[in-house]
Amino acid sequence: MSQPPGRKQENHKISRELFVLTYGALVAQLCKDYEKDEDVNTCLDRMGYGIGVRLIDDFLAHSAVKKCRSYSETADMIAQVAFKMYLGVTPSVSCSSAAGNEFSLILDKNPLVDFVEELPAERASLCYCNLLCGVIRGALEMVHLAAEVTFLQDRLKGDAVTEIGITFLRKAEDRKHKRN
Amino acid sequence: MSQPPGRKQENHKISRELFVLTYGALVAQLCKDYEKDEDVNTCLDRMGYGIGVRLIDDFLAHSAVKKCRSYSETADMIAQVAFKMYLGVTPSVSCSSAAGNEFSLILDKNPLVDFVEELPAERASLCYCNLLCGVIRGALEMVHLAAEVTFLQDRLKGDAVTEIGITFLRKAEDRKHKRN
Repeated sequence: MSQPPGRKQENHKISRELFVLTYGALVAQLCKDYEKDEDVNTCLDRMGYGIGVRLIDDFLAHSAVKKCRSYSETADMIAQVAFKMYLGVTPSVSCSSAAGNEFSLILDKNPLVDFVEELPAERASLCYCNLLCGVIRGALEMVHLAAEVTFLQDRLKGDAVTEIGITFLRKAEDRKHKRN
Repeated sequence: MSQPPGRKQENHKISRELFVLTYGALVAQLCKDYEKDEDVNTCLDRMGYGIGVRLIDDFLAHSAVKKCRSYSETADMIAQVAFKMYLGVTPSVSCSSAAGNEFSLILDKNPLVDFVEELPAERASLCYCNLLCGVIRGALEMVHLAAEVTFLQDRLKGDAVTEIGITFLRKAEDRKHKRN
């Protein structure tokens, strides 16, 4: 089989189906471990954070992107480069605050839920893909950007799209000054 | 970015790094849940089985392979088509029994352990990648092949290579006849 030109891309790619099913096994295990959806969500976010903290090096090494100069550029980078690179999809981005620090990533199709039809009734508060929020949060923190990342809409819960909200927080320095 | 010819492969591929780190989070969670390595191994195998049972449809749909006529062909198919498709690596295959029903898949490089340096001393019996054994077992069962699949060597445990052993079991019918 022929390789595409450039870096050996094949070596860095795997089947999405295997990932999606493995992720499903992880969520199912956490649902066994924790009775409350909130605890599962927190655990997924924390795991994702740990992944993001490590994944950022890989991202910077392989994406060859330059430093972002604004929150808006950063949000575009997450959607157009990172999501494309890691999940093979490109969410659309919209800015949702006048202050320019809140953004939405909107996914028409969420590859992580390929094999999930709907959440069971007793798991109505589960943020099935909450790992993604943690990954984004962890990766941003490693480039010195504090952010809150949460699901605002979720097709698994009957919403029309899946929407991830990213709120960039004031820098630690700003907060420090404010406090003084 | 240009697409390779044929089906939109990009849509079915994701970054290996994200998968590998997510798999690591799954194993870490199971290590929290279960004190004994054997229980973690069993759990990974069982999860893998559930994945294999579902993944076989995807494999048959996307690989366009024909029915295998021998255990040897089946082992080659797993190594050259399935591993390549799902993990981006191609193990070498050797037959390890005169009866022709035992095979080894030998991986010089195991993509699942990219971020793992070595097993902690207290987890010396952990089969870190045991999910793979379950996946193979589950997928084979769906094409009416009963098999035992286990790790025979593991670079994480200091072996020179990683070796997965597949022993095809006599068909249920054979066993039934024997019993009568």
